[in-house]
Amino acid sequence: MVRRGANQPSVGGYNQAVVLDQIRRADGLSRVELAETTGLSAQTVSNICARLLDAGIIEEAGRAAAAAGPGKPRTTLRLVGTSRYAVGVHLDPSVLTFVLLGIDGAVVDSRTRPTPSANDPARTVRLIVTEIDGLLDTSGVDRARVVGVGIAAPGPIDAERGVVVDPPNLAGWHRVPLRDAIAQGTGFPVVLDKDVTAAAVAERWHERAPGGASFAFLYLGIGLGVGLVLGEDVVRGGSGNAGEIGHIPVDPDGPPCACGSRGCVAVSCTPAALVAEAEALGLLPATHVDDDARSIDEALTRLVVRAADGDAGTLALLERTAERIARALAVVCNLLDVDRVIIGGPMWHRLAPWLEADIPQLLASLLVARGLHHVAVAGTGLGDDVGAIGAACLVLDAALAPQPRSLLLG
Amino acid sequence: MVRRGANQPSVGGYNQAVVLDQIRRADGLSRVELAETTGLSAQTVSNICARLLDAGIIEEAGRAAAAAGPGKPRTTLRLVGTSRYAVGVHLDPSVLTFVLLGIDGAVVDSRTRPTPSANDPARTVRLIVTEIDGLLDTSGVDRARVVGVGIAAPGPIDAERGVVVDPPNLAGWHRVPLRDAIAQGTGFPVVLDKDVTAAAVAERWHERAPGGASFAFLYLGIGLGVGLVLGEDVVRGGSGNAGEIGHIPVDPDGPPCACGSRGCVAVSCTPAALVAEAEALGLLPATHVDDDARSIDEALTRLVVRAADGDAGTLALLERTAERIARALAVVCNLLDVDRVIIGGPMWHRLAPWLEADIPQLLASLLVARGLHHVAVAGTGLGDDVGAIGAACLVLDAALAPQPRSLLLG
Repeated sequence: MVRRGANQPSVGGYNQAVVLDQIRRADGLSRVELAETTGLSAQTVSNICARLLDAGIIEEAGRAAAAAGPGKPRTTLRLVGTSRYAVGVHLDPSVLTFVLLGIDGAVVDSRTRPTPSANDPARTVRLIVTEIDGLLDTSGVDRARVVGVGIAAPGPIDAERGVVVDPPNLAGWHRVPLRDAIAQGTGFPVVLDKDVTAAAVAERWHERAPGGASFAFLYLGIGLGVGLVLGEDVVRGGSGNAGEIGHIPVDPDGPPCACGSRGCVAVSCTPAALVAEAEALGLLPATHVDDDARSIDEALTRLVVRAADGDAGTLALLERTAERIARALAVVCNLLDVDRVIIGGPMWHRLAPWLEADIPQLLASLLVARGLHHVAVAGTGLGDDVGAIGAACLVLDAALAPQPRSLLLG
Repeated sequence: MVRRGANQPSVGGYNQAVVLDQIRRADGLSRVELAETTGLSAQTVSNICARLLDAGIIEEAGRAAAAAGPGKPRTTLRLVGTSRYAVGVHLDPSVLTFVLLGIDGAVVDSRTRPTPSANDPARTVRLIVTEIDGLLDTSGVDRARVVGVGIAAPGPIDAERGVVVDPPNLAGWHRVPLRDAIAQGTGFPVVLDKDVTAAAVAERWHERAPGGASFAFLYLGIGLGVGLVLGEDVVRGGSGNAGEIGHIPVDPDGPPCACGSRGCVAVSCTPAALVAEAEALGLLPATHVDDDARSIDEALTRLVVRAADGDAGTLALLERTAERIARALAVVCNLLDVDRVIIGGPMWHRLAPWLEADIPQLLASLLVARGLHHVAVAGTGLGDDVGAIGAACLVLDAALAPQPRSLLLG
């Protein structure tokens, strides 16, 4: 687990991370521009750049004449995207997603595999190790340039120990030490974080100018959760388990929930809940799907077909779903007054055409600070791999961050 | 509005704030200890202390022999509590609270006045100005040492403009420019923040060693809200309106809410809701109290008497209230994974004997990360004045923080 702020980095390490972050996010920056944007002295910037050039992480990409006045032309510095890589793995109850990410955040290669039965975590661990090996072999990257593996897993997690703790949608998983198992199997350093947090980290990594705007990333998968970035900080919480929204009630007439309430997100917004409701309404044949992720997935596909055909009952159900999601988001937005909501995940990907118009306006009507603060709502630009991409970004964060255990620059 | 992190303080200003913060929280620190705890160089610490001594904000409080070895005895530095003051005002719909706070966070003087009718904001503004004058006259402090006035107001607020915007429990208040009105009336710089945020700021100010633990401050007043401190940061949100929990549903069988749901905090946990339910159950005479804060307050007092007498119906109602509050807190804690919950406000003060045993255990049972992360629940140690104390702390924060507009050290 990477915890920003939990350590006390040296000023030098911090400065180096700031410089690298600026170079990474820009298409090219000169030393003079770096000094201007970071507020660091020219000498400090120059020393840091020398170290990064030595390590092959940045390169001199050309010279541009200074905008005004005479003097030496400025050398543009760019990140070398192929200088370092990270592997990201998203452990979803129905699908395993693997990405190989360059240090510039570009996806070099990716693959998906069906998740083995939740009753056999050891088999899943073996598959993850095998597929990471396969991904690296296929891509042909030098393993010495791979700084580590990030894993995005359903919560709750024991962040300190790198353990997956009884996630509700992985029935056979009881305190599985996934981080250490993957580290042992692959030989790479491994970081583990919650899937929703990884998705938020992916968004932040791929922003041009982060830091100012706060956002909530609503992940709609087999389960629903939120990743939070407030200002500069990824909100992980005291035990790394921030972002649980499953027991926010969104429908007082909804089905009973294990928590003792009714109509919580967990029982009225998940794909399983949607499919169950569609079956109860006769919109889908009552196949009595259990918690089997794949059969729910297939039923959802049939529901999408009905919606695409304009079936009134299905469209009404999706309207109610939009309202429930908006009510969950309203709780988050009223509590945290975030600037933006980003939505992603496989359920979003398929239902967005019927949800994306309603959710923003329903949400806006439910905000206490409406009229004072517009909350933008948008789908992620990173697609269905956002969890895996975020997992890889965790590794890059750990590698680039000014920490004693920096994998990259230490 | 003070926004930490929104500005880019100079390193020097930041270091000074860090040193002052350390001195403030300790009973006395030497320059050597300051260098150790802050990580700053001896020379930097020495320069900063010289400036603070010159300004009369700290004093040399004595000499202690170094713990080990020979050498010059260390001079202990202490904050001069009487060197600067701040006034805090809590605008509550039923009562105005005024405190005069020393720079050490000690309450020098305080007073309360009934809040004038909500239909006449101008009268309230005049009363606030008069009472601030009276407070300063009575206390006899040098006005030149008063760095400003902080106001804690019910939300929503327009933080940028210092405006109170249609708070639900102040019916006649429509976009009242309270900050500027009080600044004009008193001649002091004024900061305005939400009441619940101010309460959280008060808690943080009075902690011995802040920074690590995150907490939610649940304020139980005429309305309910949450102040949030995550790690180093007070969470204010993009428009300064974080902390709204009024529309978290906590009772699916509760009364309808304006938001279209049922049993939200706003209609099932507030003093008004509690009194209405007690009347409906025949526990209190059905006097049909409206939104009149004082009559609700008096009815609550009668309810407390019944509870103290052991009335079974009243005790059952308070048990349900504890569960509702625990359910609201569970939403906050599951989303943010905070380390602690602190509860305060006038409703808490009176009902704590019947709520404080149930809430922690109910909350614990509702946490997704239970078993992984213990969430401590405790009442505030700052009493009913916590909002006003927090308002004064906002001023001290603004004065001590490394900002260009520092009132104190600029």
